[in-house]
Amino acid sequence: MTKTWSTPPQEALRVGPGFDLAALDASSHPGWEHGRSSAENKLEADGNRLSEVQERLYAHGRTGGSRAVLLVLQGMDTSGKGGIVRHVLGMVDPQGVQLRSFGVPTEKERSQHYLQRIREALPVGGRIGVFDRSHYEDVLVVRVNELVPREVWEPRYDEINAFEREVVDAGTVVVKVMLHVSPEEQKARLRERLERPDKYWKYNPNDVDERARWPAYREAYQAVLDRTSTEHAPWFVVPADSKWYARLAVGALVLDAVESLGLDWPPADFDVEAEKARLDAQPF
Amino acid sequence: MTKTWSTPPQEALRVGPGFDLAALDASSHPGWEHGRSSAENKLEADGNRLSEVQERLYAHGRTGGSRAVLLVLQGMDTSGKGGIVRHVLGMVDPQGVQLRSFGVPTEKERSQHYLQRIREALPVGGRIGVFDRSHYEDVLVVRVNELVPREVWEPRYDEINAFEREVVDAGTVVVKVMLHVSPEEQKARLRERLERPDKYWKYNPNDVDERARWPAYREAYQAVLDRTSTEHAPWFVVPADSKWYARLAVGALVLDAVESLGLDWPPADFDVEAEKARLDAQPF
Repeated sequence: MTKTWSTPPQEALRVGPGFDLAALDASSHPGWEHGRSSAENKLEADGNRLSEVQERLYAHGRTGGSRAVLLVLQGMDTSGKGGIVRHVLGMVDPQGVQLRSFGVPTEKERSQHYLQRIREALPVGGRIGVFDRSHYEDVLVVRVNELVPREVWEPRYDEINAFEREVVDAGTVVVKVMLHVSPEEQKARLRERLERPDKYWKYNPNDVDERARWPAYREAYQAVLDRTSTEHAPWFVVPADSKWYARLAVGALVLDAVESLGLDWPPADFDVEAEKARLDAQPF
Repeated sequence: MTKTWSTPPQEALRVGPGFDLAALDASSHPGWEHGRSSAENKLEADGNRLSEVQERLYAHGRTGGSRAVLLVLQGMDTSGKGGIVRHVLGMVDPQGVQLRSFGVPTEKERSQHYLQRIREALPVGGRIGVFDRSHYEDVLVVRVNELVPREVWEPRYDEINAFEREVVDAGTVVVKVMLHVSPEEQKARLRERLERPDKYWKYNPNDVDERARWPAYREAYQAVLDRTSTEHAPWFVVPADSKWYARLAVGALVLDAVESLGLDWPPADFDVEAEKARLDAQPF
């Protein structure tokens, strides 16, 4: 039998008042008391279920429905965002996934409001949208590196909450995930990228510079979690030193989000019997 | 041991001079002398290989490379285009796939040259682009339903060849696939959509009207194959009454296309040893 959670991740990992990022062990497995192979079995089972409910969501979108899911992925370099996309979102029909990676803004993007490129990438009805990095970079890398003065980034937390309120009111379930990797594990993963020629392409010398600012990033993440984990769009902090745990947890969070929509197959908007007769009447 | 092709699909299914669509049995399995379960094993093996070479292609794109693959999928309703996306492209990392479905042009698209929306959707370097329907609709549905006069659609074959020449010259391997389903199998698949409430959403009454124009569509497809199966961007006609065969064949064609790029892992554009030293020197 497939083993399951002792506490579901939507409870065990949710950021509430008083959450302390520095106190969370990145190698822990909250809510999961079994090992890796049980987790892999559970993820496979969740993937099959996700594939089913995702098809219902897609059908809903194809028949004019506006409900959607948005997964926001944040985390330091090497925290495993790409692996989540590959191994979790890879379990569902590519037609149903709308993926967008946010890098350094282009010149055009810089000339616009920072939420403009985010708005343009929101999932359309019926899709699971995935943001690999997001508008949160505008209060993370931007704050840590002082790319704009405090009076510019400070109001953004409230703006982001208001923006996400709009998104949720329009029918999208927003799931925000921070993949939490320890500095030690990050160092080991960067080392691996430098040791394996098939991983060189993932390495960027700037990652080491950013790493030096770890304490400032932790502070900036803590501020994000304190100020933007709302009732309508909560944060989940996923310990990510064990990749298998992070994938299991994010898979469960996405599945829960799609299931929470409670969608059934859309009814026929045509006369089924009349269409059968029309089809049968054709000579071939 | 995994069974394999007697003739590889890139030979067995390629459209050359004198190809006659009406003479091709949609339930045949050219080049494959084994059954369904051997085909499923082979597709899984091909999928693992595809996942590997696709990652090299993606790495190439991430380091500034411009090579790409474009899979163009055409076929009548129910021919299985969506299933190809789900089961074949679903085997690779969603980050590496750039999928675009072309429906009835929007008002804005209608005001532009018919190739404009196609150009905008071409895969960027490092991606496998997939067109679910394409610019070929502008010489298929448009021709069959006389949406524009002959003097407008007639020159399009040459325009399309010239356009695809540009795409290929820019570094993209173009694989054009027509999924060939028989009228009998199509009728059975439409019937199933009318019998299963979980499939109603896939049914469109217009499909039955289009079906009545089958002979005209066959003629229009024959013209496409006669006039646009070029050396640089050949067509492959895949018998699609057996879904397992169609998926096997398209999987093999896509794998061959990515492998034909002959890409290796990109070299480091930084000093590996210096970076190791920099990383090791950090206190955490």
